[in-house]
Amino acid sequence: MPLNRIRVVLVATSHAGNIGACARAMKTMGLRQLVLVAPHAFPDPEATARAAGADDILAAARVCATLDEAIGDCQLVIGTSARHRRIPWPLLTPREAASRVVHAAEQHEVALLFGRERTGLLNEELDRCQALVTIPADPDFSSLNLASAVQVLSYEIRCAGLHDAENPSPAAGADLGEPLATAADVQRFYEHLEQVLTQAQFLDPDNPRLLMRRLMRLFNRVTLTTNEVNILRGILSALSGQRDRPGT
Amino acid sequence: MPLNRIRVVLVATSHAGNIGACARAMKTMGLRQLVLVAPHAFPDPEATARAAGADDILAAARVCATLDEAIGDCQLVIGTSARHRRIPWPLLTPREAASRVVHAAEQHEVALLFGRERTGLLNEELDRCQALVTIPADPDFSSLNLASAVQVLSYEIRCAGLHDAENPSPAAGADLGEPLATAADVQRFYEHLEQVLTQAQFLDPDNPRLLMRRLMRLFNRVTLTTNEVNILRGILSALSGQRDRPGT
Repeated sequence: MPLNRIRVVLVATSHAGNIGACARAMKTMGLRQLVLVAPHAFPDPEATARAAGADDILAAARVCATLDEAIGDCQLVIGTSARHRRIPWPLLTPREAASRVVHAAEQHEVALLFGRERTGLLNEELDRCQALVTIPADPDFSSLNLASAVQVLSYEIRCAGLHDAENPSPAAGADLGEPLATAADVQRFYEHLEQVLTQAQFLDPDNPRLLMRRLMRLFNRVTLTTNEVNILRGILSALSGQRDRPGT
Repeated sequence: MPLNRIRVVLVATSHAGNIGACARAMKTMGLRQLVLVAPHAFPDPEATARAAGADDILAAARVCATLDEAIGDCQLVIGTSARHRRIPWPLLTPREAASRVVHAAEQHEVALLFGRERTGLLNEELDRCQALVTIPADPDFSSLNLASAVQVLSYEIRCAGLHDAENPSPAAGADLGEPLATAADVQRFYEHLEQVLTQAQFLDPDNPRLLMRRLMRLFNRVTLTTNEVNILRGILSALSGQRDRPGT
């Protein structure tokens, strides 16, 4: 099972106990890569207590200052979200997400992002995700505990992994026949794009509206290959260079 | 959705905090009936703290002294189990169990049993179950937190409920065309059976082996109707009465 290439990324977790409980939830389902972005308290005895035997996951956890550092080398980034956003994003059920994650993890590094206990992932964090997954909770009481959300997603990933192991997909690994871009590649492309659009006065930095967000949503849906990112950035360079030369 | 007829039964829970976390897990998935069999501490401030907004579930929770009291009126009883038993029992995946639970709950009272934190359900409690469900955890670390197990099962039940609501089964409610026996009816039948077998010296109370367990497994698999229980008990009465009359 390609579970080794799947990392659980907890962003700005407030309660150390939740980190421990998440480690335990992951480990019961065979996931071992835990990445913590700016945790409020870690390491912490409360985390160890709640890990209840999954302290090896905590000991191996990577602590990052920024989300970029945590997911830069990933080709698939999926975010968990309870909320509906202003722009609709591709929204997966846990089962759909798990199938996609396991399939991608046959060749690629995959990150599953979980946000803060109270407020989830920020919009600028969700912007980094190729898809969002929502656990179908009761609309009247949708606040799953962080570790419960990790448990449900990890469980679905394990089920998808077991299912794939029993029913190997003939298409597995065929895909586009070329390597996918990493999150860091894609992020550099977005920065390049924003800079070029601003320079071209197509994007007004004082009133950006949702333009960049809509563009990111578009490209995130595609799952760009490294080649495609190079081509797009080549186009940006070419076009902005052209505009710089007056009279052409 | 028939979720109202599904109760979560926690047997002899040690930590009050886990009861609260279970209440929260249930409520996020639209389950509301919590039954506690001989909890070590309840009510308890730790339970309320961990319920995090699901205190209405705790307030409405029924506390029972015995498992009989908790499930007596149920037609379907499913137990959760991590262990393999000496006699193999019908073992469902969470998805299969959820489908069966939701289907049964269209007409019947259904109980889902969760055992003690360390040791799970005892054999005599598992004997009361028509089927067992096992969460497919990593064999190297299969100890799910109690609330995590409740979360996974409740999640699957909600998914099955949503699926059924979208795809009503034409067979739903058809079944056997007669009411199913309650757990209390079936239990009285088992007691009657045991008494008759002992009287007939087929069962040696000093060396019962697994006889009753094997018989219970057989009848539990069937899901008896009320009629069938009456017929079986009629047969027991007739046969034991016959033996009592000497010379016949």
